[in-house]
Amino acid sequence: MEKAQTNYKVASFAGVETAGRMTFKDMLDLSGSELSVNALPAGVSVPFTHWHKRNEEVYVILSGKGQFYVDGEEFAVAQGSVIRVSPAGERCLKADATSPLLYLCIQTEANSLVQATENDGVLAASKPSWL
Amino acid sequence: MEKAQTNYKVASFAGVETAGRMTFKDMLDLSGSELSVNALPAGVSVPFTHWHKRNEEVYVILSGKGQFYVDGEEFAVAQGSVIRVSPAGERCLKADATSPLLYLCIQTEANSLVQATENDGVLAASKPSWL
Repeated sequence: MEKAQTNYKVASFAGVETAGRMTFKDMLDLSGSELSVNALPAGVSVPFTHWHKRNEEVYVILSGKGQFYVDGEEFAVAQGSVIRVSPAGERCLKADATSPLLYLCIQTEANSLVQATENDGVLAASKPSWL
Repeated sequence: MEKAQTNYKVASFAGVETAGRMTFKDMLDLSGSELSVNALPAGVSVPFTHWHKRNEEVYVILSGKGQFYVDGEEFAVAQGSVIRVSPAGERCLKADATSPLLYLCIQTEANSLVQATENDGVLAASKPSWL
């Protein structure tokens, strides 16, 4: 843990290529999401297909190339791909034979977001030294 | 939009360095989070400090180096940094003078996650062609 104060906490996913998987819910006291960063070596697949009871997942491909599976369909993903999977979607993914795959997975309670940033964000009075 | 079916939808943040900011809530029909990918050119700051009424934010630094501000404190962030900010935290960030900053921001309703993956995930019967 690099730093923690009343309203924030900081960690890092540096070293995840060696660790394989790092999860941040407990590390950062997340209350609205579960977040993981995952590294699949070239040619390696998540070893199972799964779905969720309540949670929506968003996968963000940070680097590499792979194949994604949902409900009997397969499609290519690559750095920059962002995939929303509804709870009932049966999902799996693998890294291409010639490329490792680094990806982030965000898990949230489906239909839990009450309002988005245009109504939820408020301009603050305090400022950093550079503004 | 690359692909959409009953239980999933796919987009991409490719080109965000030119666009500056891409948001995925509407693009992917996200129901549990608001997700954006943001590119700050070297030396550029988010031009304001803000806090949130209800939403927790998680910032993930995808590449580059910068400075993060919360509640009067400033600290360095870099590729791999993951920062949780509670709704009340007054926050801002900027790219270092010599480095652009690419980051992801996840917004969720604070305290909305009911259960995490160990209880929410269920093994599925269907499998991709490679398993």
